[in-house]
Amino acid sequence: MLAINGLLSLGIASQQSAISMDTDKRSAPNFIIIFADDMGYGDIGVFGHPTIKTPNLDMMAYQGQKWTNFYVAAPVSTPSRAALLTGRLPIRTGMSSEKRRVLFPDSNGGLPPSEITLAKLLKDNGYRTAAVGKWHLGHKSPFLPTDHGFESYFGIPYSNDMDKIEATDYFTLADLERFQAYNVPLMRDDRIVERPADQRTITRRYTEEIVAKIRSFKEEHFFLYLAHSFPHIPLFRSDEFKDRSKAGIYGDVIEEIDWSVGQILETLKEEGIAEKTLVIFTSDNGPWLTYKTHGGSAGLLRGGKGGTFEGGMREPTIFWWPGKIKPGVVMEMGTTMDLLPTLCTLANVSIPNDRIYDGYDISPVMLGTGSNPRDIVFYYRDTGVFAIRKGAYKAHFITQPEYGSNTKTVHDPPMLYNLNVDPSEKHNIAEKHPEIIVEIKKILNEHLATLEPVENQLEK
Amino acid sequence: MLAINGLLSLGIASQQSAISMDTDKRSAPNFIIIFADDMGYGDIGVFGHPTIKTPNLDMMAYQGQKWTNFYVAAPVSTPSRAALLTGRLPIRTGMSSEKRRVLFPDSNGGLPPSEITLAKLLKDNGYRTAAVGKWHLGHKSPFLPTDHGFESYFGIPYSNDMDKIEATDYFTLADLERFQAYNVPLMRDDRIVERPADQRTITRRYTEEIVAKIRSFKEEHFFLYLAHSFPHIPLFRSDEFKDRSKAGIYGDVIEEIDWSVGQILETLKEEGIAEKTLVIFTSDNGPWLTYKTHGGSAGLLRGGKGGTFEGGMREPTIFWWPGKIKPGVVMEMGTTMDLLPTLCTLANVSIPNDRIYDGYDISPVMLGTGSNPRDIVFYYRDTGVFAIRKGAYKAHFITQPEYGSNTKTVHDPPMLYNLNVDPSEKHNIAEKHPEIIVEIKKILNEHLATLEPVENQLEK
Repeated sequence: MLAINGLLSLGIASQQSAISMDTDKRSAPNFIIIFADDMGYGDIGVFGHPTIKTPNLDMMAYQGQKWTNFYVAAPVSTPSRAALLTGRLPIRTGMSSEKRRVLFPDSNGGLPPSEITLAKLLKDNGYRTAAVGKWHLGHKSPFLPTDHGFESYFGIPYSNDMDKIEATDYFTLADLERFQAYNVPLMRDDRIVERPADQRTITRRYTEEIVAKIRSFKEEHFFLYLAHSFPHIPLFRSDEFKDRSKAGIYGDVIEEIDWSVGQILETLKEEGIAEKTLVIFTSDNGPWLTYKTHGGSAGLLRGGKGGTFEGGMREPTIFWWPGKIKPGVVMEMGTTMDLLPTLCTLANVSIPNDRIYDGYDISPVMLGTGSNPRDIVFYYRDTGVFAIRKGAYKAHFITQPEYGSNTKTVHDPPMLYNLNVDPSEKHNIAEKHPEIIVEIKKILNEHLATLEPVENQLEK
Repeated sequence: MLAINGLLSLGIASQQSAISMDTDKRSAPNFIIIFADDMGYGDIGVFGHPTIKTPNLDMMAYQGQKWTNFYVAAPVSTPSRAALLTGRLPIRTGMSSEKRRVLFPDSNGGLPPSEITLAKLLKDNGYRTAAVGKWHLGHKSPFLPTDHGFESYFGIPYSNDMDKIEATDYFTLADLERFQAYNVPLMRDDRIVERPADQRTITRRYTEEIVAKIRSFKEEHFFLYLAHSFPHIPLFRSDEFKDRSKAGIYGDVIEEIDWSVGQILETLKEEGIAEKTLVIFTSDNGPWLTYKTHGGSAGLLRGGKGGTFEGGMREPTIFWWPGKIKPGVVMEMGTTMDLLPTLCTLANVSIPNDRIYDGYDISPVMLGTGSNPRDIVFYYRDTGVFAIRKGAYKAHFITQPEYGSNTKTVHDPPMLYNLNVDPSEKHNIAEKHPEIIVEIKKILNEHLATLEPVENQLEK
């Protein structure tokens, strides 16, 4: 399946191959993906928030690349995470559903063993791997991180508001700082080690785990996946961050995540491996606006978590790799699905050719060596394509309120926005550009023809 | 009136005073204020715009201070400019009116000669001065820049959409790039040197003028005021910036202003006076949303130009003074009215004690030497206090659509927002905090008691 791995596992690597492998291995970078939960496009200083202080993320952006048109594959957790780790749209992996938009504690499904994660690809090619934080791709075997290419796992396996065992409303519980109301487990590998997880210290403990992994793996190649449980509600933070932010508890939580980013970058520098490590920061979907001041801000973008306006699926994204990538603002499109092919290219790891990938190798954009292979983004809500972006233009075929309504509005002609000049999706220009709508409809039909029925994992 | 100037003009400076003056003069910085027209809070990369590329402003912010809670005194041009240059609310200078919100070509009024501008104070204390760009404080003597402390003036004296001599609608004219439709004059000192001003090259020519002034004054102390005519509509830009931005003509225009900022900072560095020069970038009011994609974005802030929601009066503001101010994000409140007392303090220039100033010396915040004297902001729409911010809390007593309606909505109790946790003014918390409303009402009454009748300059 994989060129290098194939040779290794067959034990027939020639002398020449061994040498070139060593060379590749020496030059192949480490990878750390930091994935926030429900962070909005506008929640970081350098993305425009006026009162949340994020000096580490700001510095990461100044030293690295701020990607301003970077997307996830779904506006909710489970499908978004499945897409990042597989490089494939959730519709292809059974990880999306209209009935149950994400996995729940009573779910019996998960990311199928037939799917090959980025972790698996890298691990099979000599990378050390670890997953820390929220998983949300199945909390039972054979769906666990350790079933999917991660050597170890430490985290809350699904959303931190699940397993709610007290009837009190959210804001009252928040005022009481009552983490006990959410009986979520904290797992190490496949075992529960704490329940309810003390969420007040979870960002700190995730960070300690990642820092320990960096130090432990520093002589080797590694891929670390840190999926924070926050700023998904219920919000908790360490004592050190309590009332620290001007922006209230939401600000406190983001500022602790910012601290965590600082710890990671600092550790890489201390260990002398900053120039060997590509760190990527992004979020799984937009801000959960339902929760008002306990939800984030999509900045100038319209909409939020759950929906297919930009606020739901465009994420504040930063790439950091000192000495390797030219600092600046990157306005090219990218998606979390592009990370698998991109990182595999950088690691000189082949990807399987027995399945459709929806990600592209965007390393030419990151490295400034070539043009962007991605010119299209599909905005899925659950199992339906609600909108498509082609270049600057986005056509909405269907819209639906993010939460609280099953009413779908079909737009014919679709609403059309030029996202480059109208990032807030305010000015419908469908009447002026019927030819673009024709083109995007063609893209839709071609895309739909690539889909095949799969077993739905979320309804199990 | 001014301590140092008083001594000088009386010719009685003692030896000791002369020495300390020399010391002061050597250490006193130069000042450059760059004032955009109708630029929105969200129109700069580092303030969150995804497709307008502003590498120079971004760098200015990284090397300097990004102020995220910085205000103007009015949501429209003339009163906002009057306030910046006098350090006083427009209600005190006759520079606000409900009937005519700004000065027009047929206006006979202007900033009264009895008002003492920042330029006058600095010029009387040995500073070289120049004004370049939009004035909008009276285009006839005795209201011109050269009547108000500026040694020279070069610019379009009022808004670039005035003197419209063709009936064609705005967007059609824009498509035709027809600057001739706006018969605005370009003035040098008190003479018209070009009419209609060729607006396509105006940003470039303003920049050349400022750069020449820097080079000419580099051995002395100087205060330069560059008030760009853009991004106020009609939008024009140099050939070099045509279709350069992903964000359309509005992006082109901002990117040319960004280029201009780069030219200024580069010149200061080349001349070796960067560390002696405080540069401040801000805008006169929020984005003119009426003009859709030819208007800017207030980012996550509500509202725009003309109104008293944050988008109308909070501006993207950057302070730059290498080696003197600690780089970072400043979330303290500041206003353009604070520039007069602040810059005078830095220049060791006393300000008159015969009038009420609404500005504070915020140099302790900028220099990190002390706390912020400002805890209150008044949001005037024309002659009325529509809202007041005290600390994190903003109370709206009256609201009115920015344009197109004379209907005022009186709010009793006022709408109350916590701007630190709710910067988008979405969640009215008036019911929860009656005590804050009582406090803010008291502030209103105390403020109103300080007002005295003045001659209205805008209705002349």
